[in-house]
Amino acid sequence: MSSNDTEPDFQLRVPEGDDRERAVCRQCGFVAYENPKIVAGSVVRVGEKILLCRRAIEPRRGFWTIPAGYLELNESPEEAAVREAREEACADIRLGGLLSVYTIHRLSQVQLIYRSVLSGGFAAGDESLEVALFSWSEIPWNDIAFPSVVWALTHDREVVEAGGIMPFANPDGATADLKSFVERNT
Amino acid sequence: MSSNDTEPDFQLRVPEGDDRERAVCRQCGFVAYENPKIVAGSVVRVGEKILLCRRAIEPRRGFWTIPAGYLELNESPEEAAVREAREEACADIRLGGLLSVYTIHRLSQVQLIYRSVLSGGFAAGDESLEVALFSWSEIPWNDIAFPSVVWALTHDREVVEAGGIMPFANPDGATADLKSFVERNT
Repeated sequence: MSSNDTEPDFQLRVPEGDDRERAVCRQCGFVAYENPKIVAGSVVRVGEKILLCRRAIEPRRGFWTIPAGYLELNESPEEAAVREAREEACADIRLGGLLSVYTIHRLSQVQLIYRSVLSGGFAAGDESLEVALFSWSEIPWNDIAFPSVVWALTHDREVVEAGGIMPFANPDGATADLKSFVERNT
Repeated sequence: MSSNDTEPDFQLRVPEGDDRERAVCRQCGFVAYENPKIVAGSVVRVGEKILLCRRAIEPRRGFWTIPAGYLELNESPEEAAVREAREEACADIRLGGLLSVYTIHRLSQVQLIYRSVLSGGFAAGDESLEVALFSWSEIPWNDIAFPSVVWALTHDREVVEAGGIMPFANPDGATADLKSFVERNT
């Protein structure tokens, strides 16, 4: 190992005082504690219609999603949901209540999805190919980017129909099998 | 810089393709993306009484808290809340609904607090000096470990009194000023 190496070289071992294996760099001793990541976003409504963004970036470029993204440091999920709507859809939103907390185990990701209402216009941000409003029957179910987008749209609709709100978690038995969930629920 | 260095040597700079400064190790090039951390826990009830743990570890050793801790990888907040009750209070709990989502900006921490009911006994786990049940008037308000514990206890009581549940966020204007919040609300 020479001092010219510029790539980290991680090895799994249990650091002193810990009880789980972590990735420790053989070169510099850095312990890369990996933590689950938080995604925040919202279902943005304009009356009966819902705002969706067509992704300009991978993963799932070309597919439709709600404005959502990773929380930055020192940011609340509410602030992140508002920021993401601005960045991805050039949209100012009025944030409502928490709709759902979804866990994507495979990705170690916890998603906090809020309800929101558009206040003003919208346009495609840097990470979107286009942004558009859809009524329920117009939603491009076969071109949705992620399963949790379908969950959120479905849960938002349940709240509208119930006239109230309870935060949802993953639907029973729901995994990343987008196709079967869409077929059962839309 | 020699190859015998075993400490990481981080420098703040914007990695290629990114738009924010991140900590990059000068020795190995590792980008330490820092993400907000998720804490999950629950207010554990036995009828009118609430289970609290006296912390055996820093920070706030000797002060009382609800069972809560950092989410591990590939774990849902619900699973973490159950695990923390088992680890800190040797308690099996039946998890109820989500009570609150608190953001501690200063620590880049998002806390998901659930309601729960104790099913069975309890005892001090490794991270607790003691575990005990308290009625509302017995709660040691001046020896609570963290502001968000007071928020959660207060919000849980509001839910009990209202006979229903809505997930709470930080109380209006609430910061880490534990003393004044306790004085106003208990």
